[in-house]
Amino acid sequence: MSSTLGTLFRVSTFGESHCPAVGAVVDGVPPRMALTAADIQVQLDRRRPGANKLGTARNEADQVRILSGVEFDKTLGSPIALVVENTNQRPGDYAAMSTVPRPSHADYTYRAKYATHASSGGGRASARETIARVAAGAIAEKFLLESYGVEIVAWVSAVGTVTAPLPDMDSVSRAAVDGSDVRCPDAAAAAAMSAEIVAARQAQDSIGGVISCVCRNVPAGWGEPIFDRLEAQLAHAMLSLPASKGFEIGSGFAGARLRGSVHNDPFILKGERLGTSTNNSGGVQGGISNGEPIYFRVAFKPTATIGLEQQTVDYDGKPVTLAAKGRHDPCVVPRAVPIVEAMAALVLADMALLQRQRA
Amino acid sequence: MSSTLGTLFRVSTFGESHCPAVGAVVDGVPPRMALTAADIQVQLDRRRPGANKLGTARNEADQVRILSGVEFDKTLGSPIALVVENTNQRPGDYAAMSTVPRPSHADYTYRAKYATHASSGGGRASARETIARVAAGAIAEKFLLESYGVEIVAWVSAVGTVTAPLPDMDSVSRAAVDGSDVRCPDAAAAAAMSAEIVAARQAQDSIGGVISCVCRNVPAGWGEPIFDRLEAQLAHAMLSLPASKGFEIGSGFAGARLRGSVHNDPFILKGERLGTSTNNSGGVQGGISNGEPIYFRVAFKPTATIGLEQQTVDYDGKPVTLAAKGRHDPCVVPRAVPIVEAMAALVLADMALLQRQRA
Amino acid sequence: MSSTLGTLFRVSTFGESHCPAVGAVVDGVPPRMALTAADIQVQLDRRRPGANKLGTARNEADQVRILSGVEFDKTLGSPIALVVENTNQRPGDYAAMSTVPRPSHADYTYRAKYATHASSGGGRASARETIARVAAGAIAEKFLLESYGVEIVAWVSAVGTVTAPLPDMDSVSRAAVDGSDVRCPDAAAAAAMSAEIVAARQAQDSIGGVISCVCRNVPAGWGEPIFDRLEAQLAHAMLSLPASKGFEIGSGFAGARLRGSVHNDPFILKGERLGTSTNNSGGVQGGISNGEPIYFRVAFKPTATIGLEQQTVDYDGKPVTLAAKGRHDPCVVPRAVPIVEAMAALVLADMALLQRQRA
Amino acid sequence: MSSTLGTLFRVSTFGESHCPAVGAVVDGVPPRMALTAADIQVQLDRRRPGANKLGTARNEADQVRILSGVEFDKTLGSPIALVVENTNQRPGDYAAMSTVPRPSHADYTYRAKYATHASSGGGRASARETIARVAAGAIAEKFLLESYGVEIVAWVSAVGTVTAPLPDMDSVSRAAVDGSDVRCPDAAAAAAMSAEIVAARQAQDSIGGVISCVCRNVPAGWGEPIFDRLEAQLAHAMLSLPASKGFEIGSGFAGARLRGSVHNDPFILKGERLGTSTNNSGGVQGGISNGEPIYFRVAFKPTATIGLEQQTVDYDGKPVTLAAKGRHDPCVVPRAVPIVEAMAALVLADMALLQRQRA
Repeated sequence: MSSTLGTLFRVSTFGESHCPAVGAVVDGVPPRMALTAADIQVQLDRRRPGANKLGTARNEADQVRILSGVEFDKTLGSPIALVVENTNQRPGDYAAMSTVPRPSHADYTYRAKYATHASSGGGRASARETIARVAAGAIAEKFLLESYGVEIVAWVSAVGTVTAPLPDMDSVSRAAVDGSDVRCPDAAAAAAMSAEIVAARQAQDSIGGVISCVCRNVPAGWGEPIFDRLEAQLAHAMLSLPASKGFEIGSGFAGARLRGSVHNDPFILKGERLGTSTNNSGGVQGGISNGEPIYFRVAFKPTATIGLEQQTVDYDGKPVTLAAKGRHDPCVVPRAVPIVEAMAALVLADMALLQRQRA
Repeated sequence: MSSTLGTLFRVSTFGESHCPAVGAVVDGVPPRMALTAADIQVQLDRRRPGANKLGTARNEADQVRILSGVEFDKTLGSPIALVVENTNQRPGDYAAMSTVPRPSHADYTYRAKYATHASSGGGRASARETIARVAAGAIAEKFLLESYGVEIVAWVSAVGTVTAPLPDMDSVSRAAVDGSDVRCPDAAAAAAMSAEIVAARQAQDSIGGVISCVCRNVPAGWGEPIFDRLEAQLAHAMLSLPASKGFEIGSGFAGARLRGSVHNDPFILKGERLGTSTNNSGGVQGGISNGEPIYFRVAFKPTATIGLEQQTVDYDGKPVTLAAKGRHDPCVVPRAVPIVEAMAALVLADMALLQRQRA
Repeated sequence: MSSTLGTLFRVSTFGESHCPAVGAVVDGVPPRMALTAADIQVQLDRRRPGANKLGTARNEADQVRILSGVEFDKTLGSPIALVVENTNQRPGDYAAMSTVPRPSHADYTYRAKYATHASSGGGRASARETIARVAAGAIAEKFLLESYGVEIVAWVSAVGTVTAPLPDMDSVSRAAVDGSDVRCPDAAAAAAMSAEIVAARQAQDSIGGVISCVCRNVPAGWGEPIFDRLEAQLAHAMLSLPASKGFEIGSGFAGARLRGSVHNDPFILKGERLGTSTNNSGGVQGGISNGEPIYFRVAFKPTATIGLEQQTVDYDGKPVTLAAKGRHDPCVVPRAVPIVEAMAALVLADMALLQRQRA
Repeated sequence: MSSTLGTLFRVSTFGESHCPAVGAVVDGVPPRMALTAADIQVQLDRRRPGANKLGTARNEADQVRILSGVEFDKTLGSPIALVVENTNQRPGDYAAMSTVPRPSHADYTYRAKYATHASSGGGRASARETIARVAAGAIAEKFLLESYGVEIVAWVSAVGTVTAPLPDMDSVSRAAVDGSDVRCPDAAAAAAMSAEIVAARQAQDSIGGVISCVCRNVPAGWGEPIFDRLEAQLAHAMLSLPASKGFEIGSGFAGARLRGSVHNDPFILKGERLGTSTNNSGGVQGGISNGEPIYFRVAFKPTATIGLEQQTVDYDGKPVTLAAKGRHDPCVVPRAVPIVEAMAALVLADMALLQRQRA
């Protein structure tokens, strides 16, 4: 079981949905960086259920505590332990499910792997595990912004059949994203997406979606060939998220339909540096950043937990009808926006440090 | 620079396009497994340029030599070094390009990263690097097949705007795939794909495509939460391939449009084990295999090297017109089929060993 | 900064001497193992200052809390987070030292490395960091004992110029070791060692010592050639301990004086298995355990913090006279006994899991 | 089986004693460094059997070939593959031993681990494996010397009961070391050591010894707390060498006998920097280099292969008398000198790169 990510900027997470706490140890954070719990809390608050009206009713404080690695609000260069207590546990909601593996959940596979499984909620596979990612990612983001001016902005670009138009990559901001509950910067699309989510909820159903993300001001030269190409690590990070089903960078799957003469990004002079006039590459060539905005998309399936009745079987193969009663989101993508940003930041921070030692 | 993949079944590759040799060291291969160079050569031959009529004219022997780790045709449990000599070097073809970064190639980014770059061909970013992956992957495949009955079959599912119908996942075979030069098991689609490639070549252009892959008989329980979920590692492996732009598993991006009641895979009894009646999950739930076929797709952009003239700039920003003369494929996907299989095998072999120690 | 040890059984530690808490995340612990805080507390109590009359007066509760990875007193196979709060902080004691690097302490080198240093106590280099190791090691020990019958017993074999006779390797026990405050199973030697320590304390000085350790019932086959030979990893683990200066296994440095005809360990039949009639190898041959007791020794320098005046210079090079006032042990070895056991257990548990996947 | 060492400067070795070749892949070597095979060959020649009159008669060319990662005699930043062919194989010499595990050899333990073993010579446990270390180490050394002025010099400080006086740490050189066949810079001790080795050989026996090593000009700040302290990694590297039994740094085991007031290294001003007036720390404090010479010693047991008859048992437990006939050194330490230097260089190069990213 590998709960650790990164080579130099490295995060290890822990915690089940109903154990005393979830958290992370972040090792390799450069010393002498200003850091307080408030720097982290802002992204945790964006991730929190109930942060928007479309989410679940489970409203936990999710207050982060820094246990180590920081003194007088400055990092020491040592491991930073982050802990968020689990305060709002209602194990009873899940008790009935223990003999039935929930369809498209991790119940069955965790048992296949460990011959045991946390009895309540998703255990380690719970969305609460992503708290640790967001907390760690907030530190990575702060480092990237202060050291390199890197800006990472993710937004909901599709919910169900509603797809938003592409925003301006150079200017789309978190403020614009947070302008709507659904976290889509396009007002019209946001409204349509909200309607999709509300409709799914009313039907006791759920709905999938897509998150897009841009990383601006990443210097050319980040990413480690061969196996640790930048897009490979971004794909790894994004597909490690619960409910994710796909990743594409730049032109993505649409690029596979094109000819090279259309797809190639010609070089042009952009001030002092070479840039490209198009960005089908998504900011990465040969696995290494080229100085253009890094742009990628992540597909998320509809939430597996639904109130609608489902015909399935229990562990013994006996047919049962299942209808979830516990709290759950009909659509994960609005809340997953800061999680995608966090994962991107963790990958980029590691790449930044790996490239530093070549300078 | 990380040229190493895997935790227990671990491959390290080396070699530029025009250095003396490319190769790999494969560590962690279980001892006492029968292995000869012929076991590896079969996949190298499938990967070789000129293996089909649609590819480049560069026809190297690409004969693999096993330097270590095998005695009397049995593995010893020690590192297996594999070497393929580079015999057909024509550096002159590339000489003129050294002052101009080729659009959508790795020339510019390698220089940004290393402040140097192999003068001929793609250097480390060359497609020849994938020889090492295929050689290592052939060992992984043999281990998986003999120890678990795992079968891995990839095929070309799209070229440009031509998309093949989904074959039967349970029976699609390498023989069927190799039935056409374009490596698509559907004859009609294969013919249309070939036409697309020939048209691109005649236009001195290139064309993108999609490879699909199924892994059958993977036992439930493989994949390491949290960060090393099975789909995360497959995505990592696939996006580490030259020219790849996207990855999706199971329902993928299309799944993001669906509701949970449609997308969820209900459990049913399949003989002795629980299975699912649909497979939108693509064989993976919560990052762990569930015993159903693992099914994913990889998007590849059109080859960046084209004969058509391209307007771009040199390293000093001066406008130049570029037209490639060297050997190149108009479409990488037919040859990339065994490479995708190799990468899938490397990931699965590592997951197999990681799960073994839990038994 | 690498605060992580191990490949499959992996521990990451965190915490400074005066931050809110110290702790560890232990990943890879096999699922379904019985585990409570009490299992861990027993070794923490043995490590605690004040556990014997010879140590410092700092008496913290050092109560461990399990935050994750355990449910209903059974491991889940997920990361186990362990936290021990720092409750008895007296930063004032150390304030005066901040402009003077303490001789043979880590003050100077931490500043050279991080351009900052925790202002109080040893920061990350404090002996309190070893709490995390002992806690993690207790889990490793439990796994080894229950799965393989492995017994690990360390003891103080030398203090200053006093050296204890070799105990019977097959029977020396923790009960016997804890029979004296100095943790030497030989009563006469223990008395002489105590006298050395008391004399050093009375002289406001400190004294070094040696810890010996035997690991019984380790099956043949553990240890990973080439670079991760068992003795290499034990040496790594032991030399990672504060104040350690040397490691030797089996015959050690004395073996370098011998001829092969004397040093070689002839094989004999021991019941069902091959054993050796002597054990100059210390239980390891070619980096792999051979089934005989693993036996090694670790040298510890005298505590750097002493009450005696020392002539040194401050960070500007100005001469100063330094005399420590804070709490400190005159001799670390009695308390280091459970730490050595913990480190041995962490290495062996990792080796056990690595060998499991070959079975 | 882990044949890989290092995080950023990383070496993977391969090869058995009687397979086609031994070698290494060295990844992470900084780009644009001048490098030719001759730079590597010089250390391989020092390691070669027959390089001195005291060694074995096996005289192989051991010519290294660079397969990748270097173009126009400059490193590219990509993996450097190094290969040395095995040309002088005489498997017949070892044939008789296959039913008898040689005492204090790796025969028995390799079989316990892998349930197989190379039939000839030591297989992976052969001294020939160290060729790969020396080749890789030569690259690390060149990097350290050119980038930091680091000088690494090892020498034989003891053979059997003969111990050489401590040379001047600041000036001892490889030229002085190579002034005698036994590689001891003190002429009188060298003569006595040679006599010990000759006597052991005449008795068809073998003899152990100690190698000392100094690393000069290592900047303050190298080494990674907590688990990867500099001395921990040096101990790991040295105890990974065949026949090694102990490691000590600075005062080592002798330091355990001292009081703190004697052992502590007071700071003094040395030009622009702080240094210490004594060096009991061996150049490392708190796991981090302090700018003083790093000084350590490694104990090697007598060669296990001896011509004298030994009473032992075969794999079935039947008593046999064994007397080796194959080529073998009576004492490994003279040839192990460049191997110790190589391992020190590999550790330091990795630490250098890890510290670089903090600058």
